[in-house]
Amino acid sequence: MFRSKTCGELRSENIGESVTLAGWVQRTRKMGGMTFVDVRDRYGVTQLVFNQETNSELCDKANKLGREYVINVTGLVAERSSKNKNMGTGDVEILVEKLTILNESLTPPFTIEDTTDGGDDIRMKYRYLDLRRQSVRSNLMLRHQITFETRRFLDQQDFLEVETPILIGSTPEGARDFVVPSRMNTGQFYALPQSPQLFKQLLMVSGFDRYFQIAKCFRDEDLRADRQPEFTQIDCEMSFVEQEDVLQIFEGLIQHLFNEIKGVSFEGVFPRMTYADAMKYYGSDKPDIRFDMKFVELKDAVSGKDFVVFDSAEYVGGICASQCSGYTRKQLDELTEFVKRPQIGAKGLVYIKYESDGSLKSSIDKFYSSEDLKSIVSLFNAQPGDLILVLAGNKTKTQKALNELRLEMGARLGLRDKNVFKPLWVIDFPLFEWDEESQRFYAMHHPFTSPKPEDIPYLDTDPGKVRANAYDLVVNGVELGGGSIRIHDSKLQNRMFELLGFTAEKAEAQFGFLMSAFKYGAPPHGGLAFGLDRLVSLFAGLDSIRDCIAFPKNNSGRDVMIDAPSVIDASQLEELHLILNLPKTENA
Amino acid sequence: MFRSKTCGELRSENIGESVTLAGWVQRTRKMGGMTFVDVRDRYGVTQLVFNQETNSELCDKANKLGREYVINVTGLVAERSSKNKNMGTGDVEILVEKLTILNESLTPPFTIEDTTDGGDDIRMKYRYLDLRRQSVRSNLMLRHQITFETRRFLDQQDFLEVETPILIGSTPEGARDFVVPSRMNTGQFYALPQSPQLFKQLLMVSGFDRYFQIAKCFRDEDLRADRQPEFTQIDCEMSFVEQEDVLQIFEGLIQHLFNEIKGVSFEGVFPRMTYADAMKYYGSDKPDIRFDMKFVELKDAVSGKDFVVFDSAEYVGGICASQCSGYTRKQLDELTEFVKRPQIGAKGLVYIKYESDGSLKSSIDKFYSSEDLKSIVSLFNAQPGDLILVLAGNKTKTQKALNELRLEMGARLGLRDKNVFKPLWVIDFPLFEWDEESQRFYAMHHPFTSPKPEDIPYLDTDPGKVRANAYDLVVNGVELGGGSIRIHDSKLQNRMFELLGFTAEKAEAQFGFLMSAFKYGAPPHGGLAFGLDRLVSLFAGLDSIRDCIAFPKNNSGRDVMIDAPSVIDASQLEELHLILNLPKTENA
Repeated sequence: MFRSKTCGELRSENIGESVTLAGWVQRTRKMGGMTFVDVRDRYGVTQLVFNQETNSELCDKANKLGREYVINVTGLVAERSSKNKNMGTGDVEILVEKLTILNESLTPPFTIEDTTDGGDDIRMKYRYLDLRRQSVRSNLMLRHQITFETRRFLDQQDFLEVETPILIGSTPEGARDFVVPSRMNTGQFYALPQSPQLFKQLLMVSGFDRYFQIAKCFRDEDLRADRQPEFTQIDCEMSFVEQEDVLQIFEGLIQHLFNEIKGVSFEGVFPRMTYADAMKYYGSDKPDIRFDMKFVELKDAVSGKDFVVFDSAEYVGGICASQCSGYTRKQLDELTEFVKRPQIGAKGLVYIKYESDGSLKSSIDKFYSSEDLKSIVSLFNAQPGDLILVLAGNKTKTQKALNELRLEMGARLGLRDKNVFKPLWVIDFPLFEWDEESQRFYAMHHPFTSPKPEDIPYLDTDPGKVRANAYDLVVNGVELGGGSIRIHDSKLQNRMFELLGFTAEKAEAQFGFLMSAFKYGAPPHGGLAFGLDRLVSLFAGLDSIRDCIAFPKNNSGRDVMIDAPSVIDASQLEELHLILNLPKTENA
Repeated sequence: MFRSKTCGELRSENIGESVTLAGWVQRTRKMGGMTFVDVRDRYGVTQLVFNQETNSELCDKANKLGREYVINVTGLVAERSSKNKNMGTGDVEILVEKLTILNESLTPPFTIEDTTDGGDDIRMKYRYLDLRRQSVRSNLMLRHQITFETRRFLDQQDFLEVETPILIGSTPEGARDFVVPSRMNTGQFYALPQSPQLFKQLLMVSGFDRYFQIAKCFRDEDLRADRQPEFTQIDCEMSFVEQEDVLQIFEGLIQHLFNEIKGVSFEGVFPRMTYADAMKYYGSDKPDIRFDMKFVELKDAVSGKDFVVFDSAEYVGGICASQCSGYTRKQLDELTEFVKRPQIGAKGLVYIKYESDGSLKSSIDKFYSSEDLKSIVSLFNAQPGDLILVLAGNKTKTQKALNELRLEMGARLGLRDKNVFKPLWVIDFPLFEWDEESQRFYAMHHPFTSPKPEDIPYLDTDPGKVRANAYDLVVNGVELGGGSIRIHDSKLQNRMFELLGFTAEKAEAQFGFLMSAFKYGAPPHGGLAFGLDRLVSLFAGLDSIRDCIAFPKNNSGRDVMIDAPSVIDASQLEELHLILNLPKTENA
């Protein structure tokens, strides 16, 4: 037996007990004739005491312990003279009688503390040491808790968790697949699923009624900070439902998670906003509604005053930053620089200061009279002390830039508290989105999303106008997930494929089995998927999903700890009938 | 709203209520002026009634319903005149007032009944219809329940579920990996994990203390009936444990599952048997102990009587089949044919009948006197009426054949009841197994398994004699899973690699990151993994794991429903810098 207690559980009730603990040496310090050793495990830290006078041999042994040595000790639980209120075990210490070194340790390349001296690269290379840090491990404990509570909730709601296959077929539409050569089927490849979408729809055809799966998904995309080649979704589907049924069930799930895990409860139902309103008032399909600061459209109000920037703009809009009229020239310049950054791309920034004394100052005084400015300011319901910030230009780009500016101002004003959570359903997404480059429509959600029945006539006349039974759940400006009611009619599904530019052959080759299944009595169905990595990040207050993944990959898709991917044996390639055709520069 | 109730929940208490149901048409039948329709969903079947007299239009519509049409109906719950005790809803029927056809269906290629007319191939091609059958779906519901209860139990025991990556590096040792070409890392490949072994050991180094994961694993092996290229394990690991701790925890898990799901409880702890005893008494490392019929070794007892078959045999052993002395010539010939089949490979079968009158008859009367036979029979503690069956030859092969014969006799005697469960821990496995062909040792479990401390001296002198801290859980002759206490000392681990014929370079290339991790304070640790597919099959009484997998692959690794794997676009190959080098016969 290596231990009778963990390092996190001893309290003053245990004083006088003989216990055995095991764990890692967090630190040692000598004070007079005493040596104190903090021993750590997943559950906590306990202080060990060695006394030079009573047992010098044992104390000498303790003095030789290095950081991260693995030890176990037996001793008596005693009351601490100077208690540590910051530690659960801070009332007690162990008077050690026996010390065994279970394993030694080299000095770790960075300190195993909540705030470490290790940079990102070294911590990823030694991820197994990074994971020893409480601050990292707690993210993974939270992840466990979220998946466990998700399963508990969905099980109670009669959902069945069904594993769908990882080795499936490739569907070139959409993001790029990872492929897996098949040795037994020469020249053929499996693909790893981008989502279990087709299989969950088949399970509905099979009458499973309520399905979920916490599923690994894969996308071979160029990675950004917040993307991983493999990621995890809480994937769900229900039969005989309308949009309202789906929203209610999964609003329940999210409320359950917030309640059980963060002790947060929400009053009433989650607010809902149409996609159209989200774009109009926030310039984003995932508005952060922890703060108001809605866009006000100004085109009509500012036109015809010979200010060519506004007159020539497709869109003029602004936001009102409360009590910011005192912004200095420098601060305003900063904001101007911010919106002019290439990734935001605005041409400039117009401001109107509504001074505390009621006067108005602006960067466009030359074109607009005080009266003009007053009427603009009144559109914002602005108060003395407020600052109006205005952008103009192409509608889509300007709304996008104004969204960034709004988020920046929200952050500057401290309105984006990580401990405040504001959920929002964004509904009525467009069914299609037009791609200028390829001059064709793409499915905004995916090709199986059903149009709103009342918009079906537009499919023939004005596809861009068709709204979908599609919805996203957004919390604090983060899209946690989304879904849709699916098409369950094979004729309508074929019409969709047509509109999306699939030939009959291509549709058959890629989705033939789904189309066949639909001919045998598909029920009305719909569902959604939440991004687990994002959900955990939101709960943990993390900036990157990487921090809630045990063994993440870097931006090149590499696991630097195990050094994968890597070259494989020639015999492996041969068995798969593959030849590498490396570009010349790589061979050099 | 598509339904107010499911098809499985109406009872006599609901009589008089107006309800809406939705589901699939199971069957329709006309009786006089009435039409009865059974509507089915996941939860059950409810009888609908249409009356030609009261609403002929509606009744005509009902008469046109085909099998597997999707409908919803509204009507009154009424008492049934002839109740059906075999159905939960058998006391009631619905007097339908409104019928909507939600979707039509072609006639399915096989009947959607527990006992279907569809063969294996057609059911796999239309797996989405096969899954509609209650008998198939119930296996998947059981699978959900087993995984849910596993998680509940392990969560209560402080285990954390941690997702380990699916895209890892290839380790050519062991079974063949599936590989995944990396586009971003030209010429390099990921591999899919055969198990999370290395990652769970790293998590122990990280101080996670108790880890589990219900994990997808992958092996590119030639498939047998009971193998799938992707399969699922309940994978577990614990720190600061000895073998006894691991056995106790997971015996608890298995007891919990049997208790919660099958209402079976076991008296006392699970029996344990050493590998040596399992081989000696059952000729198998996974004995079925639902029945006794242990091997009796006869070499000493039968030698020196000029029977050359026994005299020249390395091993002579037999079993005693209770009350089978009445076996006819034909039955004995059948058994002889059985053991002579190539997959069993015995040369012949010797019998001794201990007749009810106390006399002895055998196929070796020529060599053995009645006294000789009596002394042999007494070794079995045989009773009048019993039949002794004896095999002789090479020890390993003969024990294996005798095991098959024992199982066959157990089956014939009805001693292998699928509803009786007999768990057994097999312990003290050998650390190595010798491979005649390559003339080298292989790790019997895997290279990270720790030898028993008392056997470590044999590592240098007689590796074949070293026993491991390794254990398997066997139920009814099925190996549900197994594991070991791991090596946590990097020096001992290096010695193991040496004995297994790894060069230092090869060990470093494949397991370097684990060896590095072990230098930073690895705790003593151990664990095990259960095969989920086998566990569900055992609980469900299935003959093949395929029946508890939603979308299984066939013996060629194909999913015949989605027709994967398949050829991929030339552009996909090009992006991956791969050229297919198909063998000529395939090109033809």
